[in-house]
Amino acid sequence: MIIVMSPASSQEDLSGVEEKIKANGLTFHLSKGEDRTIVGVIGDKKKIANLEMNMMPGVEKTVRITEKYKLVSREFHPADTVVDVDGVKIGGEHLTVMAGPCAVESEDQLKEAARCVREGGAQFLRGGAFKPRTSPYDFQGLAEKGLKMLREAADENGLKVVTEIVDKDDMELIGTYADVYQVGARNMQNFQLLKALGKAKKPVMLKRGLSSTISEWLNAAEYIAAGGNENIILCERGIRTYETFTRNTLDLSAVAAVKELSHLPIIVDPSHGTGRWQMVRPMARAAIAAGADGLIIEVHPHPEVALSDGNQSLTPKNFNRLMEEVKQIGALMGKAL
Amino acid sequence: MIIVMSPASSQEDLSGVEEKIKANGLTFHLSKGEDRTIVGVIGDKKKIANLEMNMMPGVEKTVRITEKYKLVSREFHPADTVVDVDGVKIGGEHLTVMAGPCAVESEDQLKEAARCVREGGAQFLRGGAFKPRTSPYDFQGLAEKGLKMLREAADENGLKVVTEIVDKDDMELIGTYADVYQVGARNMQNFQLLKALGKAKKPVMLKRGLSSTISEWLNAAEYIAAGGNENIILCERGIRTYETFTRNTLDLSAVAAVKELSHLPIIVDPSHGTGRWQMVRPMARAAIAAGADGLIIEVHPHPEVALSDGNQSLTPKNFNRLMEEVKQIGALMGKAL
Amino acid sequence: MIIVMSPASSQEDLSGVEEKIKANGLTFHLSKGEDRTIVGVIGDKKKIANLEMNMMPGVEKTVRITEKYKLVSREFHPADTVVDVDGVKIGGEHLTVMAGPCAVESEDQLKEAARCVREGGAQFLRGGAFKPRTSPYDFQGLAEKGLKMLREAADENGLKVVTEIVDKDDMELIGTYADVYQVGARNMQNFQLLKALGKAKKPVMLKRGLSSTISEWLNAAEYIAAGGNENIILCERGIRTYETFTRNTLDLSAVAAVKELSHLPIIVDPSHGTGRWQMVRPMARAAIAAGADGLIIEVHPHPEVALSDGNQSLTPKNFNRLMEEVKQIGALMGKAL
Amino acid sequence: MIIVMSPASSQEDLSGVEEKIKANGLTFHLSKGEDRTIVGVIGDKKKIANLEMNMMPGVEKTVRITEKYKLVSREFHPADTVVDVDGVKIGGEHLTVMAGPCAVESEDQLKEAARCVREGGAQFLRGGAFKPRTSPYDFQGLAEKGLKMLREAADENGLKVVTEIVDKDDMELIGTYADVYQVGARNMQNFQLLKALGKAKKPVMLKRGLSSTISEWLNAAEYIAAGGNENIILCERGIRTYETFTRNTLDLSAVAAVKELSHLPIIVDPSHGTGRWQMVRPMARAAIAAGADGLIIEVHPHPEVALSDGNQSLTPKNFNRLMEEVKQIGALMGKAL
Repeated sequence: MIIVMSPASSQEDLSGVEEKIKANGLTFHLSKGEDRTIVGVIGDKKKIANLEMNMMPGVEKTVRITEKYKLVSREFHPADTVVDVDGVKIGGEHLTVMAGPCAVESEDQLKEAARCVREGGAQFLRGGAFKPRTSPYDFQGLAEKGLKMLREAADENGLKVVTEIVDKDDMELIGTYADVYQVGARNMQNFQLLKALGKAKKPVMLKRGLSSTISEWLNAAEYIAAGGNENIILCERGIRTYETFTRNTLDLSAVAAVKELSHLPIIVDPSHGTGRWQMVRPMARAAIAAGADGLIIEVHPHPEVALSDGNQSLTPKNFNRLMEEVKQIGALMGKAL
Repeated sequence: MIIVMSPASSQEDLSGVEEKIKANGLTFHLSKGEDRTIVGVIGDKKKIANLEMNMMPGVEKTVRITEKYKLVSREFHPADTVVDVDGVKIGGEHLTVMAGPCAVESEDQLKEAARCVREGGAQFLRGGAFKPRTSPYDFQGLAEKGLKMLREAADENGLKVVTEIVDKDDMELIGTYADVYQVGARNMQNFQLLKALGKAKKPVMLKRGLSSTISEWLNAAEYIAAGGNENIILCERGIRTYETFTRNTLDLSAVAAVKELSHLPIIVDPSHGTGRWQMVRPMARAAIAAGADGLIIEVHPHPEVALSDGNQSLTPKNFNRLMEEVKQIGALMGKAL
Repeated sequence: MIIVMSPASSQEDLSGVEEKIKANGLTFHLSKGEDRTIVGVIGDKKKIANLEMNMMPGVEKTVRITEKYKLVSREFHPADTVVDVDGVKIGGEHLTVMAGPCAVESEDQLKEAARCVREGGAQFLRGGAFKPRTSPYDFQGLAEKGLKMLREAADENGLKVVTEIVDKDDMELIGTYADVYQVGARNMQNFQLLKALGKAKKPVMLKRGLSSTISEWLNAAEYIAAGGNENIILCERGIRTYETFTRNTLDLSAVAAVKELSHLPIIVDPSHGTGRWQMVRPMARAAIAAGADGLIIEVHPHPEVALSDGNQSLTPKNFNRLMEEVKQIGALMGKAL
Repeated sequence: MIIVMSPASSQEDLSGVEEKIKANGLTFHLSKGEDRTIVGVIGDKKKIANLEMNMMPGVEKTVRITEKYKLVSREFHPADTVVDVDGVKIGGEHLTVMAGPCAVESEDQLKEAARCVREGGAQFLRGGAFKPRTSPYDFQGLAEKGLKMLREAADENGLKVVTEIVDKDDMELIGTYADVYQVGARNMQNFQLLKALGKAKKPVMLKRGLSSTISEWLNAAEYIAAGGNENIILCERGIRTYETFTRNTLDLSAVAAVKELSHLPIIVDPSHGTGRWQMVRPMARAAIAAGADGLIIEVHPHPEVALSDGNQSLTPKNFNRLMEEVKQIGALMGKAL
C-alpha cells in the first residue's frame, strides 16, 4: 500500500501514520517529493490488506498495489489449469462448447435440442431448470423435472450437463443430475452460494456479474477456491453499459485480461452477451480468436416459440455454421474440440 | 406490446405474427405507416408479459409498454405507504435516520456509536453482523455475537435496529434481534432471499443493486410484496459509473423517479453512495431536498480505526452537524424526525 | 509518480528504470517490499507529468499521484472565485439562476419566456441560437437572428444573456450579443474552442462532458484558464449511465467534488440532467442543498409546442414554484439571489 | 412514432393529441388496450422526426420507431461500400491495416516506424501531428512539421497517410499531406468539423465517441454524408465503462451492429481500445474474426521512449506477429491484405 500525504499535512500527522503502520506489525519507507510525502507500507500481505489509512489525519489518498486474490492468480500458479469433467476437458489445448436452450421447457424440445447440440459437435448440453428472472411473474423453471430431462437428453447423446444453481440448498439435488454447476451473473457476489460451492465435488462455471470488474470476478472465484474447489471455469457474458442496441456489451478484452491475471480457463457467452441472434456467430468467432477456451451458446430447435430469450437463440442450422467457423479459428489458435 | 415489422417483411410474415398473437389468447390493432407496419397487441397483461415475438420472421423489434411490477406501483396504490416499525414510522411526513458503524466490531465501539446516534436524534442503529465482502480474506462480521451487541446497544438508547441479511437461513436468527432486515446491493436480485423475505413478519429495506435500473429494483421489491410482505423501504446507495473520484455515483434522481413510479418510502445512503466522508453531509442535505424519506449514515466514534469503510464514516461531531442541517431542510419539505 | 516493479523483474530492469528517471532530470526513492519494489519519482511536476514508464522492462504498473491542472485547483487558489458578469455575481454567497427556452424559436416565444424568467427572479436569460443536434436533419438554430432576439428580450427585462458557442469563428459575433459563452457537453474537449475562449474577454460556462470524469472536466477548464481567461463557471448537466428512465444521470456529488478540488463556481442543469420536467424541481432543490452556486433551467411558455426538448421544460407556473423553493434552501445555505 | 397515453388520460387529452398530429400534416391509428391507448403516428418521416409529443396532456411516453440517419443506412444502400484511397481499398473483400506511432515525434522515429509498417504488410502510415490532449500541458503535436514527416516517410515506403484533424481551419493544410482525415473520439459530435468534412474531397475515418451509442455514431457519419462526402470509414476504438483494468472497453459487437445497420466499412483500434500492448494482438485477431474490414495499430520502434501512449504501442516484432495472425483469420473471413 502506498499512502500519499496531503501537501498541508504536518510532521505530527506523518508520525501518526508511521505509528499506526508499526502498530499493525508492518514497516515503511518514506519518499519526500516537492509537494507531497509518500509512505510505502511494507510487510505481510494480509496485514496490509486489512490496513485502513484513509481516515488518518493528513492522509490525502491511499493506493493498493496488490490484488487480494491469490489461489486463482497466474502469479501463484503460472501454468494454465485444465478442468477435467469426466474426461471432457476445458482449458489448455481444448475447445469446449456448451449449447442448448435458455430454459428447459419440455421433453420434446430438449431432446431435439440435444441432438442438434451433438450433431454440431458440442460436448455439453446447457439449459436452465432454475431460472433467476427479473419479475416474479416470469417463468421460473421446471426445477427437478427439468433436471431429469436434461440428464436424460444429455445421456442419450453422450453429452455432459451444465445448469444453473441459484440456491445453496439445491446443491445436492443439482449435483445428482449435472456435471458442472453454473453460477449466474446475478449471483456472482452471492458469497453464501460461492462458499457452499467451494465444498462441492463438481466443477463450477462462474459467470461475470453484470457490472463486475475483472478484479471482483477473480475475487469471487477465490471464494470458491478458498473453500477447496479449484475446478473453476470463468464465463464472460457481457457487461452493462449505456448502449441499448445490444442487451449487454460483450467484453472480449476480459478474455485477454483473465489469461494474463489468472490460470483458470475462460469461456464466452455471446448469446446473453449480445441478446441478438444475428450477432452470436460473429462474436463467437471473435471470442475464440481472442483466446477463449470455449463457448456457451443458446440453441433452440424453434426459437420463435421459446419461453425465454428467443431473440438470442440460434436455429440448429445457424448453430452448425457457427461450429464450422469456430473449429477453423480454433485450429489457428492451437485448440481443438 | 408493440411489434414493429421490418420494411422487408411480407404479408405472410404479418399473418404469422397475427396468428401467434391470437394463439396466445390476445388481439391486436394494425397501423400501416409509410415504411413500416406496427402491430399493437391488446389483452391480458400477464399473457402479454410472456409473449416472445422477436424471433418471428419479419419482426424488426418489439417495444414493451407496461412494467411488470404491480403491487409496488403508484398506479396500483396511489397513496404513499408509511411503514410502521413498532411506532417509528418511515414515509409520508416522517423523516427517518438510521446510523451507526459499517461493521459491528466490539461492544465498546457499538455502545459509543449508539449513544452518538441517539444524541444526534436518529431513530435506528445500523451495523453489519454479516458482511458481504469482495475478498474471502476480508473481515466477514461477528454474526450472532454482533447481533446481540446491536440489540443491547439499541435498547439502551431507545433505538430500533436495522442489519443486513445475506442468507435466507439466517432469517429467524436475525429476526430475533433486528427490527428491519436490510438486503444489500449485491443481493438485490438474489431472488431466493427476496422470496424468503416475502414471508417475513418484519419490514425489509431493499438497497438498489450496483447497476440496477429503477425498473429492475421495483421488480425486485415486487418479489417481496408478491410473497405477502408489503412493508418495504427502498434505499438508493449509488450506482456504478466510470467516475473514479467517488466510490459510486449517488443517483438522487432515483428518489424523484421512485416517488413517481411507486408508493414505497425511499431513503438514501450517502456514505456508500460517495465513499468519502467529506461528501456525506452535502449529499444527505441534497437527498432530503430531493424528497427522500430518510437517510442511512455511517457513523463511527473513531473512524480512523474502523475495520471497514472508515473513509466514508462520519465522526460524531460531523454527524451532529448533518442532523441539524437535515432537520432544517426536512422542515421545508414538510417532514419531521 | 509511483512505479510498481513486477515480482519477476530483475536488478537490471530496476537499473533501467532508475537511469531513465535520472535522464529526465528527476530523482527517486526505493521501497522494497515482500513481493514488489516500489519506486517513488521525485522532482519537477511538469517533468513527471511527461514521464512514460509503463513500457520499461520489469514495470508492472505506474500510479500518478497529482493532477495535471493547476490554475483551477483549490490547492493553488484556496478562496472561492466569484465571477462578476457586469454586476451580476456567480459564486460565493450568490445564488444565480439562468432560465429560458432550449432553443430560440421566435420573438414572441422569447419575450414571453424572458418576462417569466424575470418574474421568477432569475438573473440570466438562456436560449440556443446555435444548436448542436444529434442528427443533421434536426433544427439547428436561428443563428444571428436568434442572438438579436435574445439580447432584445433580455434587455427589456434587465437580464443577462448566456448562450452556446459551437464554433470558434462565432466568438466575436456571439460576444456582441451575449454576456456569457456556454460550452456544451459535446464540446467539453473541443480543445480548439477552449483555447480560443481562453483569449475571450467574457466569462465562459463550461458544461461537463457526457462521460467526462471530474478530472477531465477540470483539465478542460484549465485550457481556458491557461489561455488567460479565469472567469469560468462549471456546469453539471448529467452523465451517461445505463439507466434509461432518465435522459442522463444528474451527478450531484460532482458539486461536492468540485467544491473540494477547485475554487470555481458550479451551477447545475436539472433540465438536461434528467430530461423529464417532473424531476426538475426536486433536482433543483437538491442541487442547491448540495452546495451549487446556481441553476440553469429550461422554461418555455408553451412546452407542448417547443421545437426541441419540450419534455424537460417547465411551464412558467412550475418555474415560479421552483424559484420559491430554491430561495428557501439557498437561505439555509447562506446564499441569496 | 408511437404515443402511449396514460391510463389516467381523458378523451379530451386524446383529442388534443390527434389534433396536434393532424396539424403537423400527419395521420394516425388508434389501438385501445386494456390499460392504455396507443397512438401510431403515420406519414412523412421528416415531419415525424420533428414531432414533439411528450409534453401533451395525457401522454405517458413516446417511442421513436425509425432512426434519423438515412444515407449511411444499410436499408437505403444494401451493398457494402468500398472506399478507394488512390487504389488502396477499404471494405468488401479487402483487409486494411493502418499503423504507426501515436504521435509524430521525430524524423528518425517516423522513418523507422514506416519501414516496420511496410515490412509488416500494412498499407497506411498513421501518426498524430495535431494531438487532442486532456491537459493543456501535455505534448500537443508537431503540426505542419509533423505532417511533412508523415508524407515523406509514407512515400519512401509506398504507404498512404491517415492523420487526425482537430480544427476545420486545418482542412486544406492536412489535405495537402494526408490521404484520409481522421476524426477522433472527442470530436465525433463536433458538428462544425463534420460539416466541413462533408465538403472535403478526401475520405474521412470517423472514430466512435467515448460514450456514443451506435445510433449517435451513424448520425454523426450522416452529417458527413449529407454534406456530399460519402467516403466514410468508421472506427471502433473502445467505449468508457466502469472497468479500470483496461483504458477503455473495446466493443467488438459494434462491428457486427454496424455491418447490420450500415453499408460503411468499419475498422478497429485495439491499441486505444485496450490501452495495454499485451492485449493488442488478441483483440486485433478478434476484431477481424468479428467481421471488421481492418485495423489501426500503434507501432513504435522504441515504445519505452514514446512521448504519448507508450503503454499501448507494439514493438516491430510484435507487430509482425500480429500481421501474420491477422492474415490467417482474414483468409477465413474472405478478406485479404
